[in-house]
Amino acid sequence: MKQKSIVTYIDKMAFDVELNDHHFTIDASEKVGGENRGPRPKGLLLSGLGGCTGMDVVSILKKMQVTDYKLTIEVEGEPEEEYPKPYKAISVTFLFTGKDLPSSKIKKAVELSEQRYCGVSDMLKKAAELTIKIKINGEEL
Amino acid sequence: MKQKSIVTYIDKMAFDVELNDHHFTIDASEKVGGENRGPRPKGLLLSGLGGCTGMDVVSILKKMQVTDYKLTIEVEGEPEEEYPKPYKAISVTFLFTGKDLPSSKIKKAVELSEQRYCGVSDMLKKAAELTIKIKINGEEL
Repeated sequence: MKQKSIVTYIDKMAFDVELNDHHFTIDASEKVGGENRGPRPKGLLLSGLGGCTGMDVVSILKKMQVTDYKLTIEVEGEPEEEYPKPYKAISVTFLFTGKDLPSSKIKKAVELSEQRYCGVSDMLKKAAELTIKIKINGEEL
Repeated sequence: MKQKSIVTYIDKMAFDVELNDHHFTIDASEKVGGENRGPRPKGLLLSGLGGCTGMDVVSILKKMQVTDYKLTIEVEGEPEEEYPKPYKAISVTFLFTGKDLPSSKIKKAVELSEQRYCGVSDMLKKAAELTIKIKINGEEL
């Protein structure tokens, strides 16, 4: 089934985004004529990637009966210097914290997302070099 | 300069997204264990594409002294049926309304965005078939 987002011009550089019946505002920075009333659009690719793989990992871990942890996903994009300035490299870092976390299950869940389930990862790795890291309580796996 | 989004797990399938110091919630649908507290992450690619090309087009038209119009951008993605369900096709439709709109300038602005300025378009067309349409007062250019 097709998915749709409706992006409506407000004024200056600001747009309303409608997605799944939710709304938020995106805007440019002051430097380029915006008023920073919301985030930049290109960065939504990073957010979409973090959210997509994050939801996969949380679901897979739940099936593995791993539920007691905190998780933050940092996604960084490094744009080319020349227009159209696509991201040439994207890094995803999973930061898990919690007691007695099972590193092999966590690693497996992240791999399953990246290799089988995450559509955003599948698309963006066709355009940029994608690297994945996992840290558990600050220690890189 | 690197760009960053921080995606933090809330509970169930919901995550907080931080991007350019703004926050919003993303979530899965009820069908897959979410509560629809915010939009789905994969759709953010469509929103990011609409916003990126929309900001380009508005900026270019301003330089052409075209400022009196309404603009909505509809972005549709057609996912593959099999996992990881990437979009195989994405369509972007620019809907302009207003009086005496200069169709050749609008066409030029959209082309410049797609071919030269929009980094999101540049990335996503490496992964999906991208089609662009322009309608002015309901008539396709």
